[in-house]
Amino acid sequence: MLELVDLKKKLSKKDYSKIMKNLGERMGVAQRAARDAKRPIIIVFEGWRGSRRGDIINEIKQYMDSRGFDVYSTVRMGADVAKQPFFTFFWQNLPADGNIALYHRSWYYLKNSLDIKPSEEQSADSKHMTYEHINAFEKVLTDDNYIVLKYFLHISEEKQNKRNEKADKTLGKAWRELNPAYDEGGKYKEFEKRYEEMLQATNKPNCPWLVVSAEDPDVAKVDVFTDMVMRIESALAAGPKVTPEEVRPNYKYDELSKYNPDQVMDKKTYEKELEKYQEKLKMLQIEMFQKGVSAVIGFEGWDAGGKGGAIRRLTAAMDPLGYHVHPVAAPNAVERQYNHLWRFWIHLPQAGNIAIFDRTWYGRVMVERIEGFAQPGEWHRAFDEINDMEEQWTDHGMVVLKFWLHIDQEEELRRFNERQNTPSKQWKITDEDWRNRAKWDQYEEAVNEMLVRTNKPNAPWTVVEGNNKYYARIKVLKTVCEAFEKRLKKKD
Amino acid sequence: MLELVDLKKKLSKKDYSKIMKNLGERMGVAQRAARDAKRPIIIVFEGWRGSRRGDIINEIKQYMDSRGFDVYSTVRMGADVAKQPFFTFFWQNLPADGNIALYHRSWYYLKNSLDIKPSEEQSADSKHMTYEHINAFEKVLTDDNYIVLKYFLHISEEKQNKRNEKADKTLGKAWRELNPAYDEGGKYKEFEKRYEEMLQATNKPNCPWLVVSAEDPDVAKVDVFTDMVMRIESALAAGPKVTPEEVRPNYKYDELSKYNPDQVMDKKTYEKELEKYQEKLKMLQIEMFQKGVSAVIGFEGWDAGGKGGAIRRLTAAMDPLGYHVHPVAAPNAVERQYNHLWRFWIHLPQAGNIAIFDRTWYGRVMVERIEGFAQPGEWHRAFDEINDMEEQWTDHGMVVLKFWLHIDQEEELRRFNERQNTPSKQWKITDEDWRNRAKWDQYEEAVNEMLVRTNKPNAPWTVVEGNNKYYARIKVLKTVCEAFEKRLKKKD
Repeated sequence: MLELVDLKKKLSKKDYSKIMKNLGERMGVAQRAARDAKRPIIIVFEGWRGSRRGDIINEIKQYMDSRGFDVYSTVRMGADVAKQPFFTFFWQNLPADGNIALYHRSWYYLKNSLDIKPSEEQSADSKHMTYEHINAFEKVLTDDNYIVLKYFLHISEEKQNKRNEKADKTLGKAWRELNPAYDEGGKYKEFEKRYEEMLQATNKPNCPWLVVSAEDPDVAKVDVFTDMVMRIESALAAGPKVTPEEVRPNYKYDELSKYNPDQVMDKKTYEKELEKYQEKLKMLQIEMFQKGVSAVIGFEGWDAGGKGGAIRRLTAAMDPLGYHVHPVAAPNAVERQYNHLWRFWIHLPQAGNIAIFDRTWYGRVMVERIEGFAQPGEWHRAFDEINDMEEQWTDHGMVVLKFWLHIDQEEELRRFNERQNTPSKQWKITDEDWRNRAKWDQYEEAVNEMLVRTNKPNAPWTVVEGNNKYYARIKVLKTVCEAFEKRLKKKD
Repeated sequence: MLELVDLKKKLSKKDYSKIMKNLGERMGVAQRAARDAKRPIIIVFEGWRGSRRGDIINEIKQYMDSRGFDVYSTVRMGADVAKQPFFTFFWQNLPADGNIALYHRSWYYLKNSLDIKPSEEQSADSKHMTYEHINAFEKVLTDDNYIVLKYFLHISEEKQNKRNEKADKTLGKAWRELNPAYDEGGKYKEFEKRYEEMLQATNKPNCPWLVVSAEDPDVAKVDVFTDMVMRIESALAAGPKVTPEEVRPNYKYDELSKYNPDQVMDKKTYEKELEKYQEKLKMLQIEMFQKGVSAVIGFEGWDAGGKGGAIRRLTAAMDPLGYHVHPVAAPNAVERQYNHLWRFWIHLPQAGNIAIFDRTWYGRVMVERIEGFAQPGEWHRAFDEINDMEEQWTDHGMVVLKFWLHIDQEEELRRFNERQNTPSKQWKITDEDWRNRAKWDQYEEAVNEMLVRTNKPNAPWTVVEGNNKYYARIKVLKTVCEAFEKRLKKKD
């Protein structure tokens, strides 16, 4: 793609001024229209050092309303990069509906810098962060009607050398401190090959690259602005796309029936086992912390299935500074302004910490599927989106565990009635619980499909037979302990 | 206060179980009631190393709903502390209406650890962070009906030694890594004096300390839980307090009339000066970045006063990675759930960066005062709150500048009409602008008082004569350059 660029392209000052005046105005109009249409926009700038990214970005900022417009860069991220999975930073800074995030160097630069000099800490991500993951990340966004615009600013080796020399002279050392990007100096050919490969691998119809000549900054500005305005205008004119429904096999998944929710454990055994595993978990938590290994533990299950009780027994012996319980309900007003995975990415644990989710990202393929909060195309594609997300987490070295707390209909009725009849427990039972109960069969179908399609060796489901609370709590504790032990024995 | 604690207090296992069952239930009820009443709660735990803070906190967590309940600690903050003003972290993690933030060691621990070994970087904060600032911080919160509960867990020197030895034995080195708090070992008497002083200096009626014996963990739990439940219950029963109105002098402030908005600058001079100061600012930004000095620049002014244009000329030559423009409108749904200063604290610039606010925290004493969005008691006390906040920022080494863009009524009318009659500018003018204009006299009174009461040497106001846009933009640029230069010459 690089060789197709006309590096000699020129523009008269007069033409430039005329074009830019018009484009600047259209840019402002397009931004306001995108805001009204609640379409978020992500603009990515990559390219050679010395291609004047900063000037172009500053010029864009002059035309844009700063409300809902944020500029980020991966250049100064440094050591923080390695502490959480690769895309965490980008999810955390995802623009909300109608907002714009502009990247002065993005995940592409980050991948390159990891590939070039993988430090020991970065090696896990460096190994696993393929262009396929990048394409998957961008697809999640464009499928959700984010507008993703990618620009590569191309200059010749000669131009690069000239500009670097000039910057060294006028700005001094400070220039390199402000912009501590990797140095392409003296290795132009090598990097040219790397960039060509990157552009080829990630030039997809949902978010193609525009490679422009940045030899003349005016030419670059006009080319970038023109493309930006046209692409935003046409995306808005076309309106939001709807992902087509998946062609689905006429197949009945049958997983839950393999488990008998009626298991037995007496109180005495329970108390002994509880003490044993809590003690073990306490020490394992310390070891996880020391080694910087984090964990994500998700709880799903029938209403009144015992999630809360299991979580309390799990956390009772832990250091409260090292874990956090995230209760998940219907997305609030802020969360609804983002892709459905956003609210989970932003709560990923710090290195060595444990995040427990009381209900999870699987709401998409259960309640949202059944209640019609997600369109069929949306929840159909969610299985792949979720599997890819969890794979990124475990690739990074995290432990990912998912529990389904399984009781039968009779047991649920018994517990509902108990809550109804105990004053101190009444707040726990709502009309919604009864409504969900009436849809037991629909949920069973959804849960079965979910358990089959997202049970992966790296992020397994554990179905917990839950009619007996003692049995269930110990099974959860034991499963967590064993998973932590196994992970801690792993080399990498 | 320490010597009043009965360290020998005992409790039978039977009494303990009975009391705790009752307290646990009341705790859950109190939490739900506080959530319904939208009262945020902050719980602070301080005390000796080995006082079993973690156990008590984990027990509280067992009784509390994890929705809206967060635990923080300052123990592991490490070097990040020094990068932003002292209270930034605590503002960033302020609980929203109806939520709870619990601190396993809080600003008190942080102050002590800065006082004990101030590193070079920390010295600025260490020097300035007095108990008066802590009292002021807590007063801002309790005046705003936050419930602030403070517990100091007291143990004897003998008990501390015993527990530390035991932890060293059973948990090994990991224990000190997990909890890298400063070591009081061998210096009990010295720390006792320090803690006594801290307790005395910050034991205020709006948020008194409860000092409890933690020799017996059961006694500590019961004492803390009892106080916690009673204080939350009684705060809710009493309902929100209203700050009484200030007794205000019958005095007419007169500041704006000292400035003549009509100043002159021709286009040629403007262009020359613009280039000169933008070039200068570019170099100053680099130097600020290198030295880690950050700046907050706030813009206020009459509608159509030229804030946007001045900001664009200010930022045009800057590195887009080093500054951020924050447009400030009426608080949104999330922002309304916090104290009015929260949305500014969370946007403080990183070390070496520049934050520009297009409208500011002074909305409290202008639009909120005039439109009645803030009660008289609320905006009366805001002058002190704001002065203290800015003092904390400048004590930390930040540059704080505030601009009032001053035009006269005729000029505003001219600009309003121009916007109305220019299609590409119509979006800039709304009915609200006309409504504000009708209240010119009220705004003038509010602005005059604001300029007098919050014009401080550390964070000065600059009134910018704005009828001539050229003159105004250059005055802003020049003022910023001079302030940066002055700050960079300062030693500290």
